[in-house]
Amino acid sequence: MTRYKIIIEYDGTNFVGWQRQENGLSIQEVIEDAILDATKEKVVIHGSGRTDAGVHALGQVAHFDLESDFDPKKLRLSINHFIGKNSVAILDVEKVHEEFHARFDSQKRYYKYVILNRPIKSVLYQNLSWHVRNNLDIEKMKEASKFLEGNHDFSSFRASECQAKSPIKTLDKIQIKQDGEYIILNFTAKSFLHHMVRNLVGTLKMVGEGKISPNQVKDILEAKDRTKAGINAPPQGLFFLKVDY
Amino acid sequence: MTRYKIIIEYDGTNFVGWQRQENGLSIQEVIEDAILDATKEKVVIHGSGRTDAGVHALGQVAHFDLESDFDPKKLRLSINHFIGKNSVAILDVEKVHEEFHARFDSQKRYYKYVILNRPIKSVLYQNLSWHVRNNLDIEKMKEASKFLEGNHDFSSFRASECQAKSPIKTLDKIQIKQDGEYIILNFTAKSFLHHMVRNLVGTLKMVGEGKISPNQVKDILEAKDRTKAGINAPPQGLFFLKVDY
Repeated sequence: MTRYKIIIEYDGTNFVGWQRQENGLSIQEVIEDAILDATKEKVVIHGSGRTDAGVHALGQVAHFDLESDFDPKKLRLSINHFIGKNSVAILDVEKVHEEFHARFDSQKRYYKYVILNRPIKSVLYQNLSWHVRNNLDIEKMKEASKFLEGNHDFSSFRASECQAKSPIKTLDKIQIKQDGEYIILNFTAKSFLHHMVRNLVGTLKMVGEGKISPNQVKDILEAKDRTKAGINAPPQGLFFLKVDY
Repeated sequence: MTRYKIIIEYDGTNFVGWQRQENGLSIQEVIEDAILDATKEKVVIHGSGRTDAGVHALGQVAHFDLESDFDPKKLRLSINHFIGKNSVAILDVEKVHEEFHARFDSQKRYYKYVILNRPIKSVLYQNLSWHVRNNLDIEKMKEASKFLEGNHDFSSFRASECQAKSPIKTLDKIQIKQDGEYIILNFTAKSFLHHMVRNLVGTLKMVGEGKISPNQVKDILEAKDRTKAGINAPPQGLFFLKVDY
């Protein structure tokens, strides 16, 4: 038995999300089916984290086991061949030791959230950004983000269906930068709660709009109450960037 | 009669190009039809430059005349409404003096070309970049670009169907930068020959691959012979950024 680690890019627009589900096509299903076609072995792949419908990835990681031995590069080409027209690409295949686990061994996860901040919608990047019409004050968003960095109880930014044992997480860094009409928010942490990045973005957007002050974000965090925070920002602006092991 | 100047974004993927043609839907046709729906006036719009099928724009400029007087912001909203699901958006509408001409008054045009340089195709940006598998040496590309800047006879980089009176143009600047797996080439000039940017990119890509030396680009330029230069880079990597007046 050999364990393989893969790095995956996908456009989440037309999928029900990472995880295999009854109600539509998932990224997991596309990859597992392509591995079956490529190797004649039925596998279950284990992702480093689930992503919701519409969320994209530039460097999702997963692992799986095969009985037969394959050359990693040939395996990559073959899986990509069988993925065909689906908006999923295997960027890298690597043999790893048999205890490697894509989810439990991850040390750092990186996410990016893209906001298009202008009056008119985008026709080029509409599935790859959140269109916000109100002008956002990026300096206020940066000020608010400082209260969110560090070790906190993030209950105010946690989805009700979140399965994590504890709401306490260490958010290493939030970096916010302007790129023309786009505002890019980068998040780094060992792990995140369900919907945490999108809930943080929804609240930071309210700060940018002037609807709440940077200081109120501290109050929202300390309230440990999901109803106090802003909306869950839509999935199409979110990109799972990479995982460090 | 009032003359209006509009700024336009479009995803060129599913169009036959800027100009109205018999063989399919053009960006010009989409906009002219939407203006007719919005104003009940049949107009011809004049673009600052034509773009080919598959080429995108973030800031194309055009002008047209209307008999009736419209509030620019309301007109913008109305035209965008009638454009509907087509991948075209009017970013701005402005009243201008009646001699303004989107094409003849332009002082500077800006283009961007995006190359994705890695072994695997992109599933997120496949219609928005040129996928080049061979590893490109960006320093050599920069070195070669220095021979192309300035006032030259660009016959070696001119499409046979080009209608410009003279092949002599002043290329103000080529800026090349790396952004992760992407290589972005920015071009600035008062005007360009037909296919000039894409022909330049096709040749710079050969330099990056080591197939020709930076010095050979000087020879190609001086040959004034289209057959000496590299291929015409594909349209989906090209973005018409903006026009200065």
